[in-house]
Amino acid sequence: MKHGWVGGLVTTATVTHATPAGFLAQSDKRDDEEGIATQYLERAIQVYLGGGYRFFDPALRSDKKDLLSGFREKGYAVLRSRDELLSQKSDKPLFGTFSESHIPYTVDHLNDPALLRSIPTLAEMTTAALTRLEHTGQGFLLQVEGAKIDHAAHVNDAPGLVRDQIAFDDAIGVALRFQAEHPDTLVVVTTDHGNSNPGLFGQGDGYGDSDKLFSKVGRMSRSYSAISGDWYADMTIGELTSLIHDGTGIELSASEAGLVLDAIRSHGPNPYTYQNAAIPTLASILANHTAVSWGGTSHTGDYVTLTAQGPGASSLPSLLINTDLNAFYRKCMARA
Amino acid sequence: MKHGWVGGLVTTATVTHATPAGFLAQSDKRDDEEGIATQYLERAIQVYLGGGYRFFDPALRSDKKDLLSGFREKGYAVLRSRDELLSQKSDKPLFGTFSESHIPYTVDHLNDPALLRSIPTLAEMTTAALTRLEHTGQGFLLQVEGAKIDHAAHVNDAPGLVRDQIAFDDAIGVALRFQAEHPDTLVVVTTDHGNSNPGLFGQGDGYGDSDKLFSKVGRMSRSYSAISGDWYADMTIGELTSLIHDGTGIELSASEAGLVLDAIRSHGPNPYTYQNAAIPTLASILANHTAVSWGGTSHTGDYVTLTAQGPGASSLPSLLINTDLNAFYRKCMARA
Repeated sequence: MKHGWVGGLVTTATVTHATPAGFLAQSDKRDDEEGIATQYLERAIQVYLGGGYRFFDPALRSDKKDLLSGFREKGYAVLRSRDELLSQKSDKPLFGTFSESHIPYTVDHLNDPALLRSIPTLAEMTTAALTRLEHTGQGFLLQVEGAKIDHAAHVNDAPGLVRDQIAFDDAIGVALRFQAEHPDTLVVVTTDHGNSNPGLFGQGDGYGDSDKLFSKVGRMSRSYSAISGDWYADMTIGELTSLIHDGTGIELSASEAGLVLDAIRSHGPNPYTYQNAAIPTLASILANHTAVSWGGTSHTGDYVTLTAQGPGASSLPSLLINTDLNAFYRKCMARA
Repeated sequence: MKHGWVGGLVTTATVTHATPAGFLAQSDKRDDEEGIATQYLERAIQVYLGGGYRFFDPALRSDKKDLLSGFREKGYAVLRSRDELLSQKSDKPLFGTFSESHIPYTVDHLNDPALLRSIPTLAEMTTAALTRLEHTGQGFLLQVEGAKIDHAAHVNDAPGLVRDQIAFDDAIGVALRFQAEHPDTLVVVTTDHGNSNPGLFGQGDGYGDSDKLFSKVGRMSRSYSAISGDWYADMTIGELTSLIHDGTGIELSASEAGLVLDAIRSHGPNPYTYQNAAIPTLASILANHTAVSWGGTSHTGDYVTLTAQGPGASSLPSLLINTDLNAFYRKCMARA
């Protein structure tokens, strides 16, 4: 971090996950989140907000170290709930972890009153982070990650992905409103890779059905991942059909539900084996009903979005290698 | 067309297909290619190069009209082969149709000596078009379409798509070299829609296998579509495995080949029904071997590439609705 600058990390993953940790910690192992958590206490930047209290809580850490007390001793507001975050003044650095591991999908968050009370949205965390960072009066670097978009893509979870993309868009709105009031701020929006290549596909005569089919995703009340938490190998076709209907509003035929049950028990029919786990099998079947389909379940080599607004934005080239963004950030900070 | 300007259409589809025809003809029915061909003779722009002589040849037209003689009477060089195109001087307008319907896939073209002799590449057609248009000494609008990329995507044909994308890239090279020598030329590269969302997917430990797997596509000698022209419902698994190996270099297991044979006979196993025709079923199986996978077989709502170089390029916004390109072209022509 440039001398005199302060920093913040906001994410819907564990706050020690690869994307935030890549900005602050050094580790050979991305999975050593307990070690990364220990580094976070040493680094002591102004804002940590996300999931993953299991890596900080002495009752859950393998070494029983109490990092939460460590943050309190360093003067942090240590937060565990949305109410605590929203009522927090800007006079302290923030350490908030709102779930044991990753934060739930937005579609599940929106449809569960208990989760709505306990867990803030990405936009709310972004607002709290900017309020604290602005209060310091110093230059700052804040990373805000909509992490569940990637998680949803890995299992072809359409309501998971769409609602978390919208939640990320809300967080971008918070950043752009801040930028409008503080025009010396640079906002960069990007992602580190493609994932599973979701698309809205043309279906029906003259591709005329796609909009109507896609609107079904907007009416779904559970992520496919949450639904999968309630299915099991011994259930009947009728029970599975009912479970899927309750979460998605879509009534599968007996043969469609049978394919999902096969996938739950062993594997689904997709000849591309990366897509024959149970949730992607459900997703492939629901693609017929929603017009949202996917090419796989892993990262892809696709070009991705990169946009920027504020000082330095116009010096960003139209195309660049993702690792070159590091040099761009350094140049912008050096000029600031 | 602006007064005093001349025009050209170059494509690997039938020259009367929707994308070229959209620039020149008016018709309620995109499939009325005979009617569009008749309009082409009336419009009489400087260059027509592509496939589809069936819509111009009196022996093949339903109304037996001889449009080829019509073009000759109007002073065109009427061409049917690559040799005729390459030996053509720039003193005449060009009408060249090099196949009865669409031009074959580049991967099939490259691997067939007879086709190599008879059919020019997209880059060769582009060079001939620019030579003629430059010779007129007038301003010009030339549309060059790499049409087979879309055709390949519709059936998830990886060698078809990749080789035709490279052929299109070669044509872009011709245009950019012309632009470098004639800096008053604007080159715009874009497409009208996404299709089937192909991707190079991460496969293997740490996604380390993808590059090696993808290189297999470069060694394929036939499009999946060409292979499909030689398969039939009564063939044995062994015959099918051998046919696929001859074209792709990949040896399918008996169970993999069995899935393709099922698809040839009725339909494949993909639960997304848009992908269970025979060629997409082969493509889904080969995705395990090549790391190239697809999300469907229809057009998609994805953002697509739009780049430009030359006068007016800097006035192109970062994002726009595809139909707004028409106004952009008109504005550029008005300024020229």
